[in-house]
Amino acid sequence: MKIVIIGGGAGGLSTASNIRKYDKDAEITVITRDENIAYSPCAIPYVLCGEVDCFENIIMHQAEDYLERDIKVITLAEVFEVKASEKKIGYYLLNQKEDLKEMEYDYLVIATGGAPFIPPVEGSDLEGVFKIRTIADGQEITKWAQKSKKAVVVGAGLIGLEIAYGLKKRGLDVTVTEMLPQIVPRSLDPDMALIVQKYLEKEGINLILGHPIEKIAGTTKVEGAVFGDQCIDVDMVVMATGVRPETKMATMAGCELGRWSISVNEKMQTTVPDIYAVGDCVEVYDAITGHNTQSLLGTTAVRQGKVAAQNIVGKKAEFIPVLNSMVSKIGNLEFGAVGLTKVSAIQNGIEVISGKSRALTKARYYPGAKRIDIKMICNLQGVIIGCQIIAEERVAERVDTMSLAISQKLTCSKLSNMEFSYAPPLSMVIDPIILAAEDACEKLSKLNNNHKK
Amino acid sequence: MKIVIIGGGAGGLSTASNIRKYDKDAEITVITRDENIAYSPCAIPYVLCGEVDCFENIIMHQAEDYLERDIKVITLAEVFEVKASEKKIGYYLLNQKEDLKEMEYDYLVIATGGAPFIPPVEGSDLEGVFKIRTIADGQEITKWAQKSKKAVVVGAGLIGLEIAYGLKKRGLDVTVTEMLPQIVPRSLDPDMALIVQKYLEKEGINLILGHPIEKIAGTTKVEGAVFGDQCIDVDMVVMATGVRPETKMATMAGCELGRWSISVNEKMQTTVPDIYAVGDCVEVYDAITGHNTQSLLGTTAVRQGKVAAQNIVGKKAEFIPVLNSMVSKIGNLEFGAVGLTKVSAIQNGIEVISGKSRALTKARYYPGAKRIDIKMICNLQGVIIGCQIIAEERVAERVDTMSLAISQKLTCSKLSNMEFSYAPPLSMVIDPIILAAEDACEKLSKLNNNHKK
Repeated sequence: MKIVIIGGGAGGLSTASNIRKYDKDAEITVITRDENIAYSPCAIPYVLCGEVDCFENIIMHQAEDYLERDIKVITLAEVFEVKASEKKIGYYLLNQKEDLKEMEYDYLVIATGGAPFIPPVEGSDLEGVFKIRTIADGQEITKWAQKSKKAVVVGAGLIGLEIAYGLKKRGLDVTVTEMLPQIVPRSLDPDMALIVQKYLEKEGINLILGHPIEKIAGTTKVEGAVFGDQCIDVDMVVMATGVRPETKMATMAGCELGRWSISVNEKMQTTVPDIYAVGDCVEVYDAITGHNTQSLLGTTAVRQGKVAAQNIVGKKAEFIPVLNSMVSKIGNLEFGAVGLTKVSAIQNGIEVISGKSRALTKARYYPGAKRIDIKMICNLQGVIIGCQIIAEERVAERVDTMSLAISQKLTCSKLSNMEFSYAPPLSMVIDPIILAAEDACEKLSKLNNNHKK
Repeated sequence: MKIVIIGGGAGGLSTASNIRKYDKDAEITVITRDENIAYSPCAIPYVLCGEVDCFENIIMHQAEDYLERDIKVITLAEVFEVKASEKKIGYYLLNQKEDLKEMEYDYLVIATGGAPFIPPVEGSDLEGVFKIRTIADGQEITKWAQKSKKAVVVGAGLIGLEIAYGLKKRGLDVTVTEMLPQIVPRSLDPDMALIVQKYLEKEGINLILGHPIEKIAGTTKVEGAVFGDQCIDVDMVVMATGVRPETKMATMAGCELGRWSISVNEKMQTTVPDIYAVGDCVEVYDAITGHNTQSLLGTTAVRQGKVAAQNIVGKKAEFIPVLNSMVSKIGNLEFGAVGLTKVSAIQNGIEVISGKSRALTKARYYPGAKRIDIKMICNLQGVIIGCQIIAEERVAERVDTMSLAISQKLTCSKLSNMEFSYAPPLSMVIDPIILAAEDACEKLSKLNNNHKK
């Protein structure tokens, strides 16, 4: 069995490794345009801020490591053709463009990921304007930052904020700008976003919210950035304005696209026989709304690769709709979310109430206890459909607990009676999650009483 | 409505506070033999080891704080009589024993907790032999430890180990002895217990396993402890040999006892009308085996108090069977467990397999990533029935995630496909829980293949 995988990121390599796990004899080839494979793009901001020493560290494996498992990796190669009817692809090495090669496949896996989206703003082609996706991007930003004093980061999503913190730690004066009136709009409600915003401001990061970037000024190099009636002098601009799926290969192969990107079924099969697709280039279903959505997460890509691999080797596996659980750490602050925000629930026509708690991460008397804020979103039947958590520790695993609760369609009432483990240095005797669930129960009960009146 | 609560620990005070939450007019009286109320017995070892400054800090509330919420607390008082037929109790203050008082109730709540069990060993009444339950016990141990050099802690359960670590931190030479051949036998399997044992030994704590204490030697004061053919010179002995429920009051009231302690239904009602019981003095059902069991946890008492209160004020609430999730922190090591161990499953006649993972708490390249060990127990249908987790960080919340998974009767296969949040400083891209679940799936699949052959 010959398997060709286009793309050497989390999705492609997870597919390759999982196929090898189940099938010792499969011929597996991974082709990627990139120089590096198996690196963690999520880690780039942490190199920038100095928490991880260097970019080499975040490359988890080299092509040779995969050879040991008999997985062939061809780097710096471009696929220029997919002949689905003949089950062949055409490609060339970037340094030998005239030498066109062909490769047959029994199964093709498209794992082409996404590319940074740069809004069509005047000046976005100036020197000193950066996108952020690959290690090369990270290296360029780091190099340029060494000779810069003032930076603007466009986009207050996770990556934007993480990069902003990294540049701040490198001693730059940093301003983050966001078109929408709040930071992290995809994952946090305005009230929760404000807690993160205050932390960033305390760390000395400037924020301009509710203004799109209108123009990057400069002749050859960046000199300023214009928002509304403000113009800021800057030496560099980082565009953290989102990712667009790379669907060129899929289109070439004749795969149907959905609303956002490549359309796949629960087995990760595209509409073309024997062609699978995984990772940032496919669209998925939202577990709560049922709508098509994007899930641009490394964990999603890894899980999809496993499902694709299992189906390719003849096992049954289904990729389940996503809750898009996320977590980030900026400085000492962790924040995470899963499911819908209150805002996104309302946008989806779902009536909700929200329960909140502000408590501590350890027993009150225990030294080093940190404040924790939780917001839990429930529909009017009490079923939990989203949760946001912010604290200086112990956020990620609580997000996972909430993912499980949401996936099991638990009500706030049921969750408020759950068992939580307790020890004074590790938790409160009544977990902050329970306090938020109890608050949600009370809100719901008041609402129902008002309806009866 | 008049409510009398006997006992000022987690169960009694949780009942009182929750009744007040729902009923502004109820007359609530808490009677306790203790001088202090609302302290955290779980915190005593952390004062001993110096992580919490002093015993005063772990008293969360004073009697006066409850008065503010119109909850009357009578400390240092003994209930000597319960006349269930007349709905009255008799009590006296410890400093006015001749002045017998009476109090009527509409509902009585027995929250008398437990008392340390001291095995009938020769010498256990010598000076320098301590039990560990109350703040006064903690204070006496601390005082005696100041003039001691060598201590023996009898019992390698949680409290025993935590106390041992505390004494070690105070500079004593400490030996822990345990009748069974492993530490933490109730919550950890031998293989997992060994990881904790090695940590303790590295911290300089001596362990004698598989030997009951046979004799405490000395004339008036402790001088030695005898196990098998060994006699250790010691200045002090702490008996951490378990807790026995205090059922005297319940017996006096005519309440039926079960196998272990006071028998209650899911509303926390005893067999005597209008008498409830909560906390360490009642027995509960094990969610997995269905058998009666004890759940000597502060969190259980708090949850039971809430259920009792809701039923007393006329709301419907049920206490669900327990998974007995626990967590502890000793030095830098966290360890926790929920549900059955492999050993206890086998003892209960349940055939099981176990999946294990040894992974990291952060991305591999992230500085400060710690090793994490997980063992997941599943029945032969793949349903998860227990989990044990050990690491130097981020254990407690993972235990909670597993509690939720077990309570929802999730299979290892389903759990292995769940979403987990990811950021390099906070987790691995494939969570260690997923790795353990995948290992369990493989073990199960091998077992099924062998059965087919």
